Amino acid sequence: MTSPALGVCYYPEHWPEDVWESDAARMAEVGIQWVRIGEFAWSRLEATPGNLTFDWIIRAMDVLGRHGLKVVFGTPTATPPRWMVDKHPDMLAVDINGRRRGFGSRRHYDFSHLGYREECARITRLLADAVGSHPALGAWQTDNEYGCHDTTYSYSPAAKEGFQRWLAEKYGSVEALNQAWGNVFWSMEYNRFDQVELPNLLVEKPTPAHALDFRRYSSDQVSAFNKVQYDILKAKRPDLPVIHNFMSRYTDFDHYDLAETLDIASWDSYPLGHLAVSDEPDEVKRQYRRQGEPDNTAFHHDLYRAVGHGRWWIMEQQPGPVNWADFNPDPLPGMARLWAWEAFSHGAEVVTYFRWRQAPFAQEQMHAGLLRPDSEPAPAYHEAMEVAEEIKAVGMAGTATKGRVAVVFDYQSEWAWEVQPQAKGFTHGAHVRAVYSAFRKHGIDIDVLPPSTKSFAGYDIVAIPALFAWNDDLRTAIADFEGHLLIGPRSGSKTQDFSIPSRLGPDLPSNQLDLKVMRVDSIDPSLEVEVKGSGGVHLWRERIETKANVVIEDAEGWPVLVNQGKLYYLGASGTKALVQRVVDYLIEEVDLPILALPAGVRCRTRDGFRVYVNYGSGRATLTQAKDEAGYVLGGAELPAAGVTVARLATAG
Amino acid sequence: MTSPALGVCYYPEHWPEDVWESDAARMAEVGIQWVRIGEFAWSRLEATPGNLTFDWIIRAMDVLGRHGLKVVFGTPTATPPRWMVDKHPDMLAVDINGRRRGFGSRRHYDFSHLGYREECARITRLLADAVGSHPALGAWQTDNEYGCHDTTYSYSPAAKEGFQRWLAEKYGSVEALNQAWGNVFWSMEYNRFDQVELPNLLVEKPTPAHALDFRRYSSDQVSAFNKVQYDILKAKRPDLPVIHNFMSRYTDFDHYDLAETLDIASWDSYPLGHLAVSDEPDEVKRQYRRQGEPDNTAFHHDLYRAVGHGRWWIMEQQPGPVNWADFNPDPLPGMARLWAWEAFSHGAEVVTYFRWRQAPFAQEQMHAGLLRPDSEPAPAYHEAMEVAEEIKAVGMAGTATKGRVAVVFDYQSEWAWEVQPQAKGFTHGAHVRAVYSAFRKHGIDIDVLPPSTKSFAGYDIVAIPALFAWNDDLRTAIADFEGHLLIGPRSGSKTQDFSIPSRLGPDLPSNQLDLKVMRVDSIDPSLEVEVKGSGGVHLWRERIETKANVVIEDAEGWPVLVNQGKLYYLGASGTKALVQRVVDYLIEEVDLPILALPAGVRCRTRDGFRVYVNYGSGRATLTQAKDEAGYVLGGAELPAAGVTVARLATAG
Amino acid sequence: MTSPALGVCYYPEHWPEDVWESDAARMAEVGIQWVRIGEFAWSRLEATPGNLTFDWIIRAMDVLGRHGLKVVFGTPTATPPRWMVDKHPDMLAVDINGRRRGFGSRRHYDFSHLGYREECARITRLLADAVGSHPALGAWQTDNEYGCHDTTYSYSPAAKEGFQRWLAEKYGSVEALNQAWGNVFWSMEYNRFDQVELPNLLVEKPTPAHALDFRRYSSDQVSAFNKVQYDILKAKRPDLPVIHNFMSRYTDFDHYDLAETLDIASWDSYPLGHLAVSDEPDEVKRQYRRQGEPDNTAFHHDLYRAVGHGRWWIMEQQPGPVNWADFNPDPLPGMARLWAWEAFSHGAEVVTYFRWRQAPFAQEQMHAGLLRPDSEPAPAYHEAMEVAEEIKAVGMAGTATKGRVAVVFDYQSEWAWEVQPQAKGFTHGAHVRAVYSAFRKHGIDIDVLPPSTKSFAGYDIVAIPALFAWNDDLRTAIADFEGHLLIGPRSGSKTQDFSIPSRLGPDLPSNQLDLKVMRVDSIDPSLEVEVKGSGGVHLWRERIETKANVVIEDAEGWPVLVNQGKLYYLGASGTKALVQRVVDYLIEEVDLPILALPAGVRCRTRDGFRVYVNYGSGRATLTQAKDEAGYVLGGAELPAAGVTVARLATAG
Ligand SMILES: [Zn+2]
Ligand SMILES: [Zn+2]
Ligand SMILES: [Zn+2]
Repeated sequence: MTSPALGVCYYPEHWPEDVWESDAARMAEVGIQWVRIGEFAWSRLEATPGNLTFDWIIRAMDVLGRHGLKVVFGTPTATPPRWMVDKHPDMLAVDINGRRRGFGSRRHYDFSHLGYREECARITRLLADAVGSHPALGAWQTDNEYGCHDTTYSYSPAAKEGFQRWLAEKYGSVEALNQAWGNVFWSMEYNRFDQVELPNLLVEKPTPAHALDFRRYSSDQVSAFNKVQYDILKAKRPDLPVIHNFMSRYTDFDHYDLAETLDIASWDSYPLGHLAVSDEPDEVKRQYRRQGEPDNTAFHHDLYRAVGHGRWWIMEQQPGPVNWADFNPDPLPGMARLWAWEAFSHGAEVVTYFRWRQAPFAQEQMHAGLLRPDSEPAPAYHEAMEVAEEIKAVGMAGTATKGRVAVVFDYQSEWAWEVQPQAKGFTHGAHVRAVYSAFRKHGIDIDVLPPSTKSFAGYDIVAIPALFAWNDDLRTAIADFEGHLLIGPRSGSKTQDFSIPSRLGPDLPSNQLDLKVMRVDSIDPSLEVEVKGSGGVHLWRERIETKANVVIEDAEGWPVLVNQGKLYYLGASGTKALVQRVVDYLIEEVDLPILALPAGVRCRTRDGFRVYVNYGSGRATLTQAKDEAGYVLGGAELPAAGVTVARLATAG
Repeated sequence: MTSPALGVCYYPEHWPEDVWESDAARMAEVGIQWVRIGEFAWSRLEATPGNLTFDWIIRAMDVLGRHGLKVVFGTPTATPPRWMVDKHPDMLAVDINGRRRGFGSRRHYDFSHLGYREECARITRLLADAVGSHPALGAWQTDNEYGCHDTTYSYSPAAKEGFQRWLAEKYGSVEALNQAWGNVFWSMEYNRFDQVELPNLLVEKPTPAHALDFRRYSSDQVSAFNKVQYDILKAKRPDLPVIHNFMSRYTDFDHYDLAETLDIASWDSYPLGHLAVSDEPDEVKRQYRRQGEPDNTAFHHDLYRAVGHGRWWIMEQQPGPVNWADFNPDPLPGMARLWAWEAFSHGAEVVTYFRWRQAPFAQEQMHAGLLRPDSEPAPAYHEAMEVAEEIKAVGMAGTATKGRVAVVFDYQSEWAWEVQPQAKGFTHGAHVRAVYSAFRKHGIDIDVLPPSTKSFAGYDIVAIPALFAWNDDLRTAIADFEGHLLIGPRSGSKTQDFSIPSRLGPDLPSNQLDLKVMRVDSIDPSLEVEVKGSGGVHLWRERIETKANVVIEDAEGWPVLVNQGKLYYLGASGTKALVQRVVDYLIEEVDLPILALPAGVRCRTRDGFRVYVNYGSGRATLTQAKDEAGYVLGGAELPAAGVTVARLATAG
Repeated sequence: MTSPALGVCYYPEHWPEDVWESDAARMAEVGIQWVRIGEFAWSRLEATPGNLTFDWIIRAMDVLGRHGLKVVFGTPTATPPRWMVDKHPDMLAVDINGRRRGFGSRRHYDFSHLGYREECARITRLLADAVGSHPALGAWQTDNEYGCHDTTYSYSPAAKEGFQRWLAEKYGSVEALNQAWGNVFWSMEYNRFDQVELPNLLVEKPTPAHALDFRRYSSDQVSAFNKVQYDILKAKRPDLPVIHNFMSRYTDFDHYDLAETLDIASWDSYPLGHLAVSDEPDEVKRQYRRQGEPDNTAFHHDLYRAVGHGRWWIMEQQPGPVNWADFNPDPLPGMARLWAWEAFSHGAEVVTYFRWRQAPFAQEQMHAGLLRPDSEPAPAYHEAMEVAEEIKAVGMAGTATKGRVAVVFDYQSEWAWEVQPQAKGFTHGAHVRAVYSAFRKHGIDIDVLPPSTKSFAGYDIVAIPALFAWNDDLRTAIADFEGHLLIGPRSGSKTQDFSIPSRLGPDLPSNQLDLKVMRVDSIDPSLEVEVKGSGGVHLWRERIETKANVVIEDAEGWPVLVNQGKLYYLGASGTKALVQRVVDYLIEEVDLPILALPAGVRCRTRDGFRVYVNYGSGRATLTQAKDEAGYVLGGAELPAAGVTVARLATAG
């Protein structure tokens, strides 16, 4: 593994050719090594059908290469030109209300449209031939932000036919489908697959299995779409990595699945925009408006490390105010540096700022870059330069340290609880992130695991919160695990067909956990049920029948946390305080070492270094940890947006 | 009248035939006498067009009959199978936004579609022939929950044509329609009936008369739809009652009208779900989340007693948590018993729990039953058994006692104020329920009356709040009434054609009430106008010109309550405190006997018994009433969710 | 200029012909001089195509004329009859969701539909011929409330074709359009004009230039629609003024542009309805619910004086409760008089009450008139009579005094910030009105100026808040101005093509203002940034680079108000307190005379009189101003809703 590097997103087609040279020179001066180009340029690469003009982008690559910059080349398939829509009018997706979504922005295509998929193969093949051997080329990006702007799901005729074919293949017979979906319930039984409708514009909700299968189908189309490009690019240059840039809290398709045809996962990190559009409480939004929520970015670093089988980048890093949230704050001075350092500490190979120069025109004209529209340096220009120098000085390389704690994150569980919340606002992700934050508050390194994990070996604690249904791999991993396991609430409460398991949730063998969820009390969020000792239950509590040991119970005597050996079951959706109490209890059981971090400070270790970052708006003072041998960047005093790097004694 | 009985809803098609026997045996063991079946089974009764398979359901009836259970057989017309939609693609309703609503749940049909109406006649005829003579058969149910999921109104071509025909019949000439609707107002005059559009997707609101007539038309289609089935079922078995199951606070069609082709009214009582989805204040939702609002259920008991001309059932009784509200609480232990007792005290003949066994699949998998999905008893199983035993022990029979107070509830008035709120949130129902609750707080038995009532004889007090327009029957009843009458606010403020009456509201002869509403001050709900003495005005106050006696006036000197003899007019929408003050004033005038009930406790009398129920979450202590001769169930100490039954001395 | 006069809106087609005479007599008795008729009567003027019946309305004009009343005749084009829609089915507009908007209310036409435009020319020509020489005729009104009910924008095929033609004419070549819109950004480049779509139902936002051009196009269609009628009416009677009635806070089309084919601007003033539907804070809505917001009405008086090049009317004046807001309060006694006086003080030539008699039928049956539905006088009847007498007694004539302060209001800036708020809720109008109110609080007369203003000569202070882009006229006016100029926030931050100017905002020559806006911090409205001294920043603050003098800075040291000579730049969206502080600072710099007005009291001068009005709900006491020579109506003690008129000494 080489040292971390910086990159930037660049659009040569936006600027006169005569400024490319000085742009490249200034990038090199900042210390940038990677430049992403190409991903929105289709109308300039093929202005009319078949009229290919690749010369200009090759010249741009020449310029960049001359300055020692490596290119990530993005396929332009997220922005088909206007003539493409003339050629394939039905390539436009249909929204949940049955309306075609028109041309005039981006991502105006339907993943189910096979004609457009073929057009994407064609342009990818042509590009691979045209630029695939360019000496500056270092990596590929497929498309851009799959699913952004609500584009995973389409309710078009193409989607309906695709879904029907997919169901026929999955179920073999319509009787099997009727059985799996429980269609007898309201005489919803089909006689033939071509009678199955998409689950929108119905009179009442569809069966949950219908809704979930449509999400699985739609997710598969995104993966299939990516695979077409991946296969072409790898055939051309087996040595170059293929990357896609995912997003924060975006879960409409299964990223683990898609990443089976990627070499590296990347994501686009906009901490302030994400916080602004999130459902975080108002006080969090206010407290961190210029820094971002302190755990959300880190969680996604760890998630995409899992998605990428260990390899991941930031493909777009927020450099200043953006344009797409209701409110777009100016980052606290230093955040563009802090975010890069934090990414590296979680194992990022490259952090690519978006974008080089703020474009004075079009949709993102209020989105900052490293340069202002008048080509003067914006604050992030200087902060990026600082990062480049510091990274070199510190000499960090290697990979993120394996955590002692892991938490399972599962896309299908996100879909399942969106389909059937039962308590409005109950989500898988919120439960996963709550556990994640409670461990991270103590400076513990955490890994995110996919539901396809076959073994938990090497972890002290694994948490599987709110997972809708077990699969064979997870059942094996649980059975074999010798560490402490925390599951629930709601984990294992469904079968893969979205039914209640015959032995009820959590559906584990009674020698593992002798417990049944008899029913659920779901609770308006304005109410909280007190818990004996401390903490509270909100949104969700389960009435359970159990022979296991009750560790915590609520004020009305309902068991909240029970254990049978090292397996812990949490039967409620806890407040922040309750989740922390549960996590603290487990940490103590396991005797896991923890750090005393000031509020707002977080850390992660990589390659023998521990990187501290301060999300607080004031100064914080670090206590040197026992395993540290002193600071190599910054010191015990951390200003707002400050970064301190400690060298670990064990690495010394 | 026989004694009250329990029932349960059962879906033999959901379970292997070999468990039917033990299911029936256990039902009998609980003390259940009635079993509703059939109403969602069309795809199993006719899997493809004309392919009729009734044998299995006859076998299910055989099994039930063998265990002494009587069957309510539901026509399956709320769930037409998928092939029906192939046959009649235009049977799907169109929503207010102009979108066809698809197959995949239930109630996917348009009441205006005459082809589907004929299909329903066909299957009803076939079923009447097939099971009409079965010895276990005891009653019929038509369809299921007419109007549920917003299905009364359709904006389809079929609805448009039907509406035009209906208007032609009502008005005779287009000139009469133009006159009645006031179409001259904005040049909205029609030249021919086939030019009349449905009142959706307009630029601005339609004339109120247009909107109201469309509601009347739509309501008529539901009645006509029911009549087709009623006529067939009665022709087959004149001796068996035909029932339909209505809902809580659902008023899109006129239930009095529809019940002209019913023998018994029934309704589906889900106290927790109803509270959760209602517009009750948050504090009420919190206080009663596990019990339900203490007066809403009782109000509907009394309403459906009126709808059923005295005969009514609960066709679906909530047994535990449901699935369809945003939050679905677990009922307080005892509520499944309390709700049954309360229904019986208001005159219910049968209380049928929904459902026997929680279905582990499909849309309602989180909806509790008497059995859990694993066939173990859920709490309601035991509570139902308790009720069955207690009912027998107490020996209550007869009918609900006629009240001394009555309140008029009118579906057209609900539509009228939805069409023209003038103050957002002003509804007929809220005014009716406010008066109802104020009387009920004192333990007074209340009857609900339809607007077709011709005489108020026998009542001490009759209230007619917020009724939009008089009809001849009501004018007669008012003129003849010798008791105390409370009308207003807004009562009689319109003609049947939705115009302001020429002598202005409340449009009564001046020898009855010499009063005119000159104009209205409607008020943002965050404001309240103080009333001299106590109480407040919110939402609505009328500037009236009157020669009547002013009983109460507000702080600005606007008359609030006036009277002319025994006729009282309330010129404002009162806060809870003001409505209570007005009701208390009337009670005192009439010298009506009242009870001193603890907060959260309510009661009703039937057949010489008074049933007390405790909706509070804590213990309450009853004071024995003068007319009581002791307790026959429970005692003076009422626990949360407790029931006490007193024997009346007068009945001794 | 003649003396102010009163008018009333009358619909002879709504009433039996035999009451016209007494109606006219009573109007004259009130002191009314003008009667608006005709504008909704098309179905009575032409009941079927070509079947013209103008005789009845001529008879109505005869009756009115006999009583000395002058007629404003409105073209009926806002209410095409039903048969017109049969003739031109595609004349119905299409909403932003792609749905045709049906017949059954009013304004059911698409401004882009040229066939309907021709029908309007036809009926206007016929009417001009029929009534144009009637002796009672005094003025014309075109259509009614252009744009009301969201009707400026249509997303129909007609609109698409019109937009494409308009773009072809504006840009000449598709390359020029691609360049202006920045279409290279996401491969949005067009090959031909007929590929351009309307900016609705896209996947993501369109380019801001696309959105803005569509608004410009749509605005132009409204102007073109009006011009057709204007040209016909002026050809017939060059001597009679053509008027249109605009609305409050309605900015979907450019009123300055449209008024190029008007002789007089008018607007429809409903102070209570406007407040109820506005986004004013709840406490303002509560405090002024029966009076209206104290500055909004006045602002529109001044705006429409600008729109009308000095000549303006109130065409509809609220007389009592209306029907169209969620809550429709009863005005405080006296407001119908106060509003008329206030309008006259701002220069209104005529104040026309809407309407004569409350119609008991159709959509507006709850809308008060001067008469109740039973023809008895409503309160406004008497108040209007009072006004008529007082106006005569006071003897006010002439025009509104030219202000010493002016503020620029620009429709395109409203559109620009709606297209790109960047901070949700940032609007041009709110910034303009905030400055307006801050000056008005001191009793200062203010003028509103259009962005086409070429010179600011004669003003002491001119404010140009939140103007999106300069034009040559304004640049000249600024360069030549010798008074104090206040610009910002955001003023001049875009080019006319909606790009960031190459020298960044505010894009003024550095010898005028040496300042650049480097980036923007936009802020959730629940937060406020403190300002040193007093006041706060909310929603928006700019990080500026400047060599100008910093007058005010915020607690974090960001410059808030800077000046370079007499040019002041405000770099933030201020709270009420901050805007007042800035305005007070300027007033002091300029040494502008101010009045000490009690809270809730406002004033304006005209023709040597100063009219005080009291919007407060309690009594207020005036201090006589130095320039006054005593009161000619009322006195120093102003009751709630009171009016006092002072004679200015200078006029003495
Ligand atoms: Zn993998
Ligand atoms: Zn009846
Ligand atoms: Zn002009």
